Amino acid sequence: MENNISIEKSKTTKIQDVDFNNLSFGSVYTDHMLVCDYKNGAWETPKIIPYGNLSLDPASKIFHYGQSIFEGMKAYKDEAGKIFLFRPTDNHARLNKSAERLAMPSIPESHFMEGLETLLKLEKDWIPTTAGSSLYIRPFMFATGVGFHASPADAYKLIIACAPSGAYFSGKVKVLIEQTYSRAANGGVGYAKAGGNYAGQFYPTKLAAEKGYQQIIWTDDNTHEYIEEAGAMNVFVRINDTLMTAPTNDRILDGITRKSILKIAEDEGIQTEVRKIKVSELVDAANNGSLKEIFGAGTAAVISPLAGFGFDGKDYDLPELEAPFSARLKKRITDIQYNRAEDKFGWRHEVK
Amino acid sequence: MENNISIEKSKTTKIQDVDFNNLSFGSVYTDHMLVCDYKNGAWETPKIIPYGNLSLDPASKIFHYGQSIFEGMKAYKDEAGKIFLFRPTDNHARLNKSAERLAMPSIPESHFMEGLETLLKLEKDWIPTTAGSSLYIRPFMFATGVGFHASPADAYKLIIACAPSGAYFSGKVKVLIEQTYSRAANGGVGYAKAGGNYAGQFYPTKLAAEKGYQQIIWTDDNTHEYIEEAGAMNVFVRINDTLMTAPTNDRILDGITRKSILKIAEDEGIQTEVRKIKVSELVDAANNGSLKEIFGAGTAAVISPLAGFGFDGKDYDLPELEAPFSARLKKRITDIQYNRAEDKFGWRHEVK
Ligand SMILES: Cc1ncc(COP(=O)(O)O)c(C=O)c1O
Ligand SMILES: Cc1ncc(COP(=O)(O)O)c(C=O)c1O
Repeated sequence: MENNISIEKSKTTKIQDVDFNNLSFGSVYTDHMLVCDYKNGAWETPKIIPYGNLSLDPASKIFHYGQSIFEGMKAYKDEAGKIFLFRPTDNHARLNKSAERLAMPSIPESHFMEGLETLLKLEKDWIPTTAGSSLYIRPFMFATGVGFHASPADAYKLIIACAPSGAYFSGKVKVLIEQTYSRAANGGVGYAKAGGNYAGQFYPTKLAAEKGYQQIIWTDDNTHEYIEEAGAMNVFVRINDTLMTAPTNDRILDGITRKSILKIAEDEGIQTEVRKIKVSELVDAANNGSLKEIFGAGTAAVISPLAGFGFDGKDYDLPELEAPFSARLKKRITDIQYNRAEDKFGWRHEVK
Repeated sequence: MENNISIEKSKTTKIQDVDFNNLSFGSVYTDHMLVCDYKNGAWETPKIIPYGNLSLDPASKIFHYGQSIFEGMKAYKDEAGKIFLFRPTDNHARLNKSAERLAMPSIPESHFMEGLETLLKLEKDWIPTTAGSSLYIRPFMFATGVGFHASPADAYKLIIACAPSGAYFSGKVKVLIEQTYSRAANGGVGYAKAGGNYAGQFYPTKLAAEKGYQQIIWTDDNTHEYIEEAGAMNVFVRINDTLMTAPTNDRILDGITRKSILKIAEDEGIQTEVRKIKVSELVDAANNGSLKEIFGAGTAAVISPLAGFGFDGKDYDLPELEAPFSARLKKRITDIQYNRAEDKFGWRHEVK
């Protein structure tokens, strides 16, 4: 361990209060967290301390200017109790990509990975083994430097916290294809995992929820003619036997689940296309019966098949297939994640 | 006082450490702050407490999902020591407009205004009387409710903090007309004073600063053909003797300085136009000599004349006029703000 991470152990544990058979998503936190401060142009040594409140100056720029980025990862435990991460260095790389766009400092891979692994080994009893559950990991970084001048802060904090979690969605998911609001601008920060991208989605999502939809499928802000992504998921569409998803651009998050699904689908012999997808194509395909599936893909929601979508005041149902691509692909990716199948692509990362 | 605001006085004061003749912008805070918590669907009674650190759960949604809005106001002291605000209920109304777009609760005008006035009376010695200085007031609201689920928080905090401040810019201001990055999407949150809108500007502004520009003039994200606003200011352009500014839309903040300047200009007999302004018009006007002035307008920067602009790799200087509109309009608006002239439009609000 080159970073000499210090560990201050919690005197108590909350683990006995957790019902591992009834986990919600991201609402109970483990006993410890990793904290790393950036000051005077350098990152200090990460430290692990008991999970607890932060003390922050009200002039810290996080409260004023939205310098806030995060990642979403999961730790999986196999039947033998071994702990795995899925493509974790991709999350690290994306965190740094987000940091650059938000004028925040990049974090060295060694700080991130060693900090994360040390934390996970300490919290290993918190990784659920109940089906469909995992330890959701939330690395996040924000501006602690102070000032009411609208300019980047001079100090930041990186924290990694963990939450044993069950499914992200409960029940059927219906989405609304958005025609008024948008999530991201050309030349904006949509491709970054920046806090502000999420707050901007809440109000339109609330309006959609009032009409009976759980999520929004975002379209381009200029024409609203092309589908982009959904809430915290990339979107896949199956027309006949072709599986397609939009190409990433500066408005779309380059999802790790998305790119893994593309690889697995190819490996399964499924025809894939990465190309712009018109809303009108979806509607036509729904009308003529060639639209077979739409599903969301993301770390939190894994693969979430949609029951239907709404557009222009009309609802379109999706068929219930016997052997949907979504189920096949979900089994393949989760089998890799939980160490139940061969790791053909070298994605698994054991924490030991 | 219907709200029974409680006041816990600070046992010490930092005021003797402040050099009121050399104030920077927004970097020294007064002894007290107003805090108001929103919980269980209702705002609690605002309280005034000593300015100091906040204690927050790391899972508070401010750190993850960017639910963060703010306002910028100033308190002015006249020669007799009377205290004035400028159109403060417009800031309150805009705070609520921002809150709605970010799915945050609206705050009653009485909480806001009584809280603000009580705080200002307590901090009255902190309001500078040195020329060009004022007490910058920063109301801000953010999500304290916890959870790693990307959905609106169930608890919020409103804080009002104050900072005796001098000029926002020092020296000449040159701007770059942006052709790659953008500030806001159609259907996005650009019209709200949301934290995330500012973080997204820092990186492009840093790139512009490396080329010698202090600010960016943002253009529409689709074509980059129309000028919108600059950093934390609306933009005015004078071609020959006509003063123009872009119409507000969902990408542009509806600035209180902007709308006041429009009124004052009309009152001065200056011809005004509120219409879309093409970058190519500016370039043509600069080339043929009809471009007389560009200035930014905002609470923090008041009226900031620009020395020139860069576009497409070329620099355009603005002439140094003897009696620019910017100086005339700045005198008119600051005379109203500091109670040195008749308040013809009823904008001044005395705190007594
Ligand atoms: C906006 C957005 N799109 C897509 C994704 C999916 O990305 P990943 O598969 O890397 O979790 C996420 C969630 O992480 C997201 O927040
Ligand atoms: C993006 C933006 N535009 C314009 C303004 C000017 O608005 P106002 O005159 O109300 O201060 C501000 C600052 O408040 C701002 O942040």
